[in-house]
Amino acid sequence: MSLTIKSHFASRTYLSFTTKPSRFTGYNTKIRPNSIYHFNPLRLTYYQPKKMQAPVQYSPAPLIKSSLIEPDGGALVDLVVPEGERGAKTIEAESLPKVRLTKIDVEWVHVISEGWANPLKGFMREDEYLQSLHFSSLRLKDGYVVNMSLPIVLAIDDETKERIGSSSHVGLVGPDGDLIAILRSIEIYKHNKEERIARTWGTTAPGLPYVEEVITPAGNWLIGGDLEVLKPIKYNDGLDHYRLSPKQLRKEFDRRNADAVFAFQLRNPVHNGHALLMNDTRRRLLEMGFKNPILLLHPLGGFTKADDVPLDVRMEQHSKVLEDGVLDPETTIVAIFPSPMHYAGPTEVQWHAKARINAGANFYIVGRDPAGMGHPTEKRDLYDPDHGKKVLSMAPGLEKLNILPFRVAAYDIVAKKMAFFDPSRAKDFLFISGTKMRTYARTGENPPDGFMCPGGWEVLVKYYESLQAEEATQQPAAVSS
Amino acid sequence: MSLTIKSHFASRTYLSFTTKPSRFTGYNTKIRPNSIYHFNPLRLTYYQPKKMQAPVQYSPAPLIKSSLIEPDGGALVDLVVPEGERGAKTIEAESLPKVRLTKIDVEWVHVISEGWANPLKGFMREDEYLQSLHFSSLRLKDGYVVNMSLPIVLAIDDETKERIGSSSHVGLVGPDGDLIAILRSIEIYKHNKEERIARTWGTTAPGLPYVEEVITPAGNWLIGGDLEVLKPIKYNDGLDHYRLSPKQLRKEFDRRNADAVFAFQLRNPVHNGHALLMNDTRRRLLEMGFKNPILLLHPLGGFTKADDVPLDVRMEQHSKVLEDGVLDPETTIVAIFPSPMHYAGPTEVQWHAKARINAGANFYIVGRDPAGMGHPTEKRDLYDPDHGKKVLSMAPGLEKLNILPFRVAAYDIVAKKMAFFDPSRAKDFLFISGTKMRTYARTGENPPDGFMCPGGWEVLVKYYESLQAEEATQQPAAVSS
Repeated sequence: MSLTIKSHFASRTYLSFTTKPSRFTGYNTKIRPNSIYHFNPLRLTYYQPKKMQAPVQYSPAPLIKSSLIEPDGGALVDLVVPEGERGAKTIEAESLPKVRLTKIDVEWVHVISEGWANPLKGFMREDEYLQSLHFSSLRLKDGYVVNMSLPIVLAIDDETKERIGSSSHVGLVGPDGDLIAILRSIEIYKHNKEERIARTWGTTAPGLPYVEEVITPAGNWLIGGDLEVLKPIKYNDGLDHYRLSPKQLRKEFDRRNADAVFAFQLRNPVHNGHALLMNDTRRRLLEMGFKNPILLLHPLGGFTKADDVPLDVRMEQHSKVLEDGVLDPETTIVAIFPSPMHYAGPTEVQWHAKARINAGANFYIVGRDPAGMGHPTEKRDLYDPDHGKKVLSMAPGLEKLNILPFRVAAYDIVAKKMAFFDPSRAKDFLFISGTKMRTYARTGENPPDGFMCPGGWEVLVKYYESLQAEEATQQPAAVSS
Repeated sequence: MSLTIKSHFASRTYLSFTTKPSRFTGYNTKIRPNSIYHFNPLRLTYYQPKKMQAPVQYSPAPLIKSSLIEPDGGALVDLVVPEGERGAKTIEAESLPKVRLTKIDVEWVHVISEGWANPLKGFMREDEYLQSLHFSSLRLKDGYVVNMSLPIVLAIDDETKERIGSSSHVGLVGPDGDLIAILRSIEIYKHNKEERIARTWGTTAPGLPYVEEVITPAGNWLIGGDLEVLKPIKYNDGLDHYRLSPKQLRKEFDRRNADAVFAFQLRNPVHNGHALLMNDTRRRLLEMGFKNPILLLHPLGGFTKADDVPLDVRMEQHSKVLEDGVLDPETTIVAIFPSPMHYAGPTEVQWHAKARINAGANFYIVGRDPAGMGHPTEKRDLYDPDHGKKVLSMAPGLEKLNILPFRVAAYDIVAKKMAFFDPSRAKDFLFISGTKMRTYARTGENPPDGFMCPGGWEVLVKYYESLQAEEATQQPAAVSS
């Protein structure tokens, strides 16, 4: 049984919600208060699945456990201070020079603290930063290479640098003034923004969401060091129970006796094309001889651009997809991946895959133009839609991960459902773009039957209605003036 | 005996001829006709060195031969068609669709054909291109990783692509219309110039010499494939005897019984600070126990920007440095490295080092801001002057190469010579920048005694005089109009 699936690279468009943003309106901080989907995904296993329940054969032989795949660099880091030491560490942190974090900095503290970026133990020092920028990987002391395609860095301004002076450690303070962490044995080095942007995105065109939100306003210095996080990062947005750490996920995979875990990264609603793909992947894994492949449906939960669908709406939509039985709750875990989004295409998809290794996934599904978007100033995709999966399949440090490229799905107008595209009857297929889907939802028009489960679709329609209502209440002032 | 020298990174300015070009005036095609230095460097061994002739101790034990260091990926490629097959291959090439090469494309054909880019066998296909752009390295089929930081690619325009049609092979034609090579089993893929520039240079600012000369005017497609070069590339500029291939260099190192080879990449005249460094490196290698370290003084011979000193003048200057005994001809080989220059700093220095591995050098000297230049639109260095050596020391595929960082040299006004900078008496040291040096040469003023050997200095003065004479003859027309 070969663990490597060398599949047909999809050569053409796959349904995707990637769209060319006409403008960038800043970080979406609005958290909708009335999320209706709050049940814990860990409890999903107790639901009776409604369909597609193939009788699962549990092998009598001992299964390969949690470590279907080893975390990068060995053991998972856990940078949260044990409860017994919190008091003393907090007192120490108070005595140190302070660095004020943005909301997105805190998301990175969260990411690092739980080992998503394993074996990274804090914000990057210059050696790590340079390796990340130039090689998309880090060479560890033992010679082992791990993937690390995004610079995970903390920027400070001149004034903060001055204030830190010769101190070896600093206290990190959240946007609300609460002490969050200590950064130890710090190293301060230059933040060449132009070079960082060019090497990460392959463009310096204005209008890149993460650049405009995070990098442009940031200081001209980077500060690296080892993190000690004073307590687990929580968002209190009603979704924290979805934020399972890599350790918790690995435990859950074991508890379910998974013998393969396939991760699906997304930042968009799930339609039936996605579902077809995920179910087909499971089928293929069963055919390969796996007895209990588990799907990690893993929406990204950190910063996204303003015109993406907000996290709480997406979580609600995903819950409907499981409730409606489009995905099988018995073999699916839904959890939030706490990383912010860079929209850096082939560079970022490596990060998305690498973080899932640390969470225990040994198969990773990759589609057309992963982490891509439209070019901010030209009428074209920023990245070649095929480069993401090509780069991913060759990336240093990801050799142990099985990459599963998407097959192209589209709406089959004859069968009236989402199906894998058949080039021999191309005219029977309808490609519904993200823009098209949003237009449907915004205008209240229904997409073709079978495009998305009705419950999931309803969540989107409601969201766009609420947006329009909001816009409407903001207009009268201008009209009446 | 440790083969790795972890030296003090130079923390401050080193004398360098890197300057901020005020303008870029195109590729310097002028070849000075009267080069006075034509003797073959292979004959240097027969010269009686004038000084610094330490009695060389030849070990009675068998020395480690040519392969002080293995070429990347195993055996050196030799892509020049054997003489007996030339006729038939030329006839075949004539029958194929043609791709017209620029002068710089031909330099790359030269580089690839002799194995400087080992194990590359032709212009990069997309898989190699993407790995180079993203990882500065290639993973070979056997899992072995070699460094490959610059994309070595051939661009074609829409019309040429159309003309090639479905042909599997093409003929490559030089700027003068002569058939140069066959490119086999071709692959044509998109040339995203913006992404290539951003990822290679870490900026997309206008005014990068290689970009303006090569990339901007190039077509929107890249064509990769395997090279078969119809005959060795010659320039007929009176310097071809300096253009030793990696194979020839390895043979010469063996012939001299070298037990260490240290390479010095340069594109500028050699002053006594460089010489001090090279001689000091040799001394350190002897102290480490090597019996016969050989210096490869290896000026870059391909495209350089307009305000760099032209190759023929540099070769003349280097010859004087050896004639004047500043470097020891007995333990020095002077040869031309045929690569074009990218001025891509930390990305390019890896290429410079990697190519020297293939030529048999197991030690590489790296200085301040290697392959750097001023930012084309801002008043600063394009790269952090320390990043080159840091990146080099961490680069994948260069682990087997010993990196020797520069120590900082400057003019010691007390000792009246170039010396290693002593921070305890900083005020005694004079840093003579490239701009300053050129001003001296241009105005006919002499630099401080001991800055450069008189013979070498005279070559530069004459060059700048000839430039001024040329400028003068170009001005009257404007004045008289």
